[in-house]
Amino acid sequence: MKHTLAILVENKPGVLTRVAGLFSRRGFNIESLAVGVTENPDTSRMTIVVSGDDHILEQVMKQLNKLIDVIRVSDIPGDESVNRELALIKVGVDSTTRAEVMQIVDVFRAKIVDVGSKSLIVEVTGDESKINAIEQLLRQFGVKEMVRTGKVAMNRGAKVVQTEKR
Amino acid sequence: MKHTLAILVENKPGVLTRVAGLFSRRGFNIESLAVGVTENPDTSRMTIVVSGDDHILEQVMKQLNKLIDVIRVSDIPGDESVNRELALIKVGVDSTTRAEVMQIVDVFRAKIVDVGSKSLIVEVTGDESKINAIEQLLRQFGVKEMVRTGKVAMNRGAKVVQTEKR
Repeated sequence: MKHTLAILVENKPGVLTRVAGLFSRRGFNIESLAVGVTENPDTSRMTIVVSGDDHILEQVMKQLNKLIDVIRVSDIPGDESVNRELALIKVGVDSTTRAEVMQIVDVFRAKIVDVGSKSLIVEVTGDESKINAIEQLLRQFGVKEMVRTGKVAMNRGAKVVQTEKR
Repeated sequence: MKHTLAILVENKPGVLTRVAGLFSRRGFNIESLAVGVTENPDTSRMTIVVSGDDHILEQVMKQLNKLIDVIRVSDIPGDESVNRELALIKVGVDSTTRAEVMQIVDVFRAKIVDVGSKSLIVEVTGDESKINAIEQLLRQFGVKEMVRTGKVAMNRGAKVVQTEKR
């Protein structure tokens, strides 16, 4: 099963290597990863999407909790959370296809953030399936390049992932 | 100096650990990191923001290029590229402050993606300074939780980071 983990860590060199190492030693492939600072500048929050055996993942989470510099590990349930990622997609266009690409961009409430003579850069945010859908549609025009942030997730309502050490 | 690196890698377990390990062994702190799939499903693209000595960074880039599973490493210049990240910010609100928060969200062309009785989740995309600015403004209402994706970057115009091995 696919899981989305929020891992709060101290903002220090080497933490990422130790966390990533725990997953790779168990053979987990990290499907997506996003790391950024939180509301507390001393801590970073890693959002990791992994799929694999639930029992082994539970062990990995216990080991993560024991790591120095790891403050907290939470499994964010997909159905009670907001899930978003951002993608930049460079699409080949010419004078005849530009309007068609712009229509697709409108439908997906995406944005054009750069215009060249032969290409456009489209910025789109949403859940994974939305980004996959717009990418599929843009493929017919030629996707020259795509970069995605990986998913971030947050529990809906008042429940928060605390940044203070227990 | 701050650098934004685009690192194309084969989508295999352990690659992230090796890449992150190269930076941490040299004492580089990774300020932000985003990993996602590209237009080619066998490859992932890592966007890493690091700051440190330019000469040492050059060495790290050479070593990265020698790693198995690393396809290509590019330094994306800030002034000729599109730079974006995404943040979700949970803000405490009550009946008197909700309207004020919604005004700020409008000004920043951000979006409210969840509404609770005591909090809202705001989704905002932009460059680092824009996200820092809205976070600062929302702090007065109480930022309960923030998660950021880390930056992704793409060269403007037709120039692309190739996904095929040289």
